Amino acid sequence: MTVGLVASTLGTAFAAARETRIPDAAIARAAQLRETALASDLGYRVTESLTTEVGARLAGSEADARAVAWAQAKFRELGYDRVWIEPVSFPKWERRSESAQVLGANAQPLTLTALGGSPGGTVEGEVVRFADLAALEAAAPGSLAGKIAFVDYTMARARDGSGYGAGSRIRSRGPSAAIRAGAAGYLMRSAGTGSHRNPHTGITRFDDGLTPIPSAALSVPDAQQLTRLLALRPQRVRVALDCGWDGTATSHNVIGEIRGSKLPHEVVLIGGHLDSWDLGTGAIDDGAGVGLTMAAGALIGKMDKAPARSIRVVAFANEEQGLHGGNAYARQHAKDVTRHQIAAESDFGAGRIYAYSSSAPAHAKVADEQIAQALAPLGIAHTPGKGGPGPDISPFAAQGLAWARLAQDGTDYFDLHHTPDDTFDKIDPQALAQNVAAYAVFAYLAASAEGGFGSAAKPVAPPSE
Amino acid sequence: MTVGLVASTLGTAFAAARETRIPDAAIARAAQLRETALASDLGYRVTESLTTEVGARLAGSEADARAVAWAQAKFRELGYDRVWIEPVSFPKWERRSESAQVLGANAQPLTLTALGGSPGGTVEGEVVRFADLAALEAAAPGSLAGKIAFVDYTMARARDGSGYGAGSRIRSRGPSAAIRAGAAGYLMRSAGTGSHRNPHTGITRFDDGLTPIPSAALSVPDAQQLTRLLALRPQRVRVALDCGWDGTATSHNVIGEIRGSKLPHEVVLIGGHLDSWDLGTGAIDDGAGVGLTMAAGALIGKMDKAPARSIRVVAFANEEQGLHGGNAYARQHAKDVTRHQIAAESDFGAGRIYAYSSSAPAHAKVADEQIAQALAPLGIAHTPGKGGPGPDISPFAAQGLAWARLAQDGTDYFDLHHTPDDTFDKIDPQALAQNVAAYAVFAYLAASAEGGFGSAAKPVAPPSE
Repeated sequence: MTVGLVASTLGTAFAAARETRIPDAAIARAAQLRETALASDLGYRVTESLTTEVGARLAGSEADARAVAWAQAKFRELGYDRVWIEPVSFPKWERRSESAQVLGANAQPLTLTALGGSPGGTVEGEVVRFADLAALEAAAPGSLAGKIAFVDYTMARARDGSGYGAGSRIRSRGPSAAIRAGAAGYLMRSAGTGSHRNPHTGITRFDDGLTPIPSAALSVPDAQQLTRLLALRPQRVRVALDCGWDGTATSHNVIGEIRGSKLPHEVVLIGGHLDSWDLGTGAIDDGAGVGLTMAAGALIGKMDKAPARSIRVVAFANEEQGLHGGNAYARQHAKDVTRHQIAAESDFGAGRIYAYSSSAPAHAKVADEQIAQALAPLGIAHTPGKGGPGPDISPFAAQGLAWARLAQDGTDYFDLHHTPDDTFDKIDPQALAQNVAAYAVFAYLAASAEGGFGSAAKPVAPPSE
Repeated sequence: MTVGLVASTLGTAFAAARETRIPDAAIARAAQLRETALASDLGYRVTESLTTEVGARLAGSEADARAVAWAQAKFRELGYDRVWIEPVSFPKWERRSESAQVLGANAQPLTLTALGGSPGGTVEGEVVRFADLAALEAAAPGSLAGKIAFVDYTMARARDGSGYGAGSRIRSRGPSAAIRAGAAGYLMRSAGTGSHRNPHTGITRFDDGLTPIPSAALSVPDAQQLTRLLALRPQRVRVALDCGWDGTATSHNVIGEIRGSKLPHEVVLIGGHLDSWDLGTGAIDDGAGVGLTMAAGALIGKMDKAPARSIRVVAFANEEQGLHGGNAYARQHAKDVTRHQIAAESDFGAGRIYAYSSSAPAHAKVADEQIAQALAPLGIAHTPGKGGPGPDISPFAAQGLAWARLAQDGTDYFDLHHTPDDTFDKIDPQALAQNVAAYAVFAYLAASAEGGFGSAAKPVAPPSE
């Protein structure tokens, strides 16, 4: 009952009825927290620990299970008040080996990697190049019978990663388009901006009713090489992939919580995803997101005065193969959406944050602006109305969860993302500390706000726990 | 006899007796040649052709034989007056597969590549890290029994590549030092400056009387990862290499000549090496050197007036595994050293040339300065006394061959060299054109000089051919 009374003053309940504000004292403490975080290497060390001790952690692998154990132990080591896991089940995909060769007069190896979800198999055929997805989709049914389709689209570099939409569509939709035209195999230029001999993987899907074909991405230099070779003469290529789906695996969302002082049953959620692709060590995708949000929560936990609400840090399971952890969280907490003040996920590398925005409704604009002002000394602009929720919180956001976006500079993100080059050495410790500071300030202030940010509509009942 | 008379005026004969000079008319023509070459993409296109149509060409491989055929055809296509091959035999080494894993609590794959000359085999053992070669060489005999030695030396970046001396010694001497201490396997941080997940190969040797052990280089990020892991706890690693020596192979030096107008039996030699390591496509090492010197010769061949001496362009066989082509050339032409006016090899990538120097003796200082002045508009400084002959001409230089050095900016050379990333896309066409211009100007002027540059001491007899 005490909790219920406090909630009526400070919580999300009746939030729409009054303006959401953050007390001045909390803003002053957040400024201290910001400086503490900037001077700390905790986020960097946590990211180092995960990417070094576990390394790559493909969802459902032995290493993924080790990552779950690592996250629980790390949350405890960092002083989180409560640590628990929630199961997440999904189909398991494995990569075992992969190779390709140009055959004939210009015989030479090509460097590629299977797309996640590709079946295994060896295919050999003439390569037919398409400049983009639309060209492949326009190919007549049967026109690629016995051939290997090759989409050679060059993804654009952008600070906000906006080039990846068109790039990743080549991966998600290209294989099905190739099958419809009769192709025996599918190749694409990596959906990345790198110039190194490191191909870019990522999940693909095959439309219902189609028989999947071996599908892989060439490194950018190899795609350029194949294009030059095709300009000389027709080319036959052999692609050999040993990979595929193998039953169902269960992993876990790993959750740590710093208990709030007044409304512990309400939470500000931050996090990243614990799984990675198998080629690198999952440093920028998304060891950094896990490490920096774990550190942000831990630094809040070390403050003299806890915020009103709890800080919940979630290391989501299997984001890479279809937001399995985020979907599971949304399902498992469907009744709790109003207990979530607001959420922000870090899953765009380890570059500096340059912009803040949120889904704050009209009644929370003051608090939203207060958060933005506290972030401004970090070089972060307020860009209301921009962006959307991070991937793992998007299923829950669709149920009414309020979200914030701390936009990272992703100019070089797609040089590394999903490639063997996603390794710890690529992380700038100062940039990571700026991220920790931003997440800590954001989470602390949102958890201290009087009033809500619009998560769902109806008042939340006091929790039974 | 006529030839003999001309030689006494213009040639290397009696060169020591008078000052070597380049006629003004030749200098004027060289200035035109320089502008023609700067505006030409011929060197870039020849390099593209080799690296695309043949790709990687490990000495003795099927692709190496294709490269020999390619070079002969390309010389002819470029209008060279004479094209021939000279056999070069050497032991053949092959790479088939390679992998490594950290075992135990931090199980994860490591990216490495066998050193050229390594035997195959699978070794599993505890890793003992050494900060540099001296530390390994100080290890007591037997102290590494059953273990894997790991030298984690970080090579320095430098425009002139001077960091590679210390870096490559780790590769050439490290394995033998490890064997002396009893090690079962040898690992090193790649002798390169790159930060990508692409390990750096290169030849190693085992001292006589030692039983070779599997020896490989980790990519730089993997070496850093292993070092972090070793800071946590002892680590066992399994290294599996399938590679090794397999009999003897014969390849060829491929030679094209533009016939001189007055002293066709005397030559200015330029060139690069035709073979490459197998990981990339041998673009900067040394497709560029072959392509740019072939183009330089071809542009001289297209001039209205041929220079007095012949321009000989040599695409040397098997430089990588021990200067086999350069040694063969020196052996096969031992009697002809005085017929060689001067020689320069391009084997340091595709960066801009920033300095010129030569072994010109006192009597050739005027001509040397004339060449330097003709190169100056290309941004090339005269640095008398610096450097030495390129690798493939060094065995012949030891017999008295005069050499010139056109020093390339190698700041990023060791980011790419001997790695999978040595691919055509890394070459800047403008920088390559500057190289072509420099080699063309140098070769044309040296071939036009009245007097010699000091190759050997005694007068050359008129050739029998």
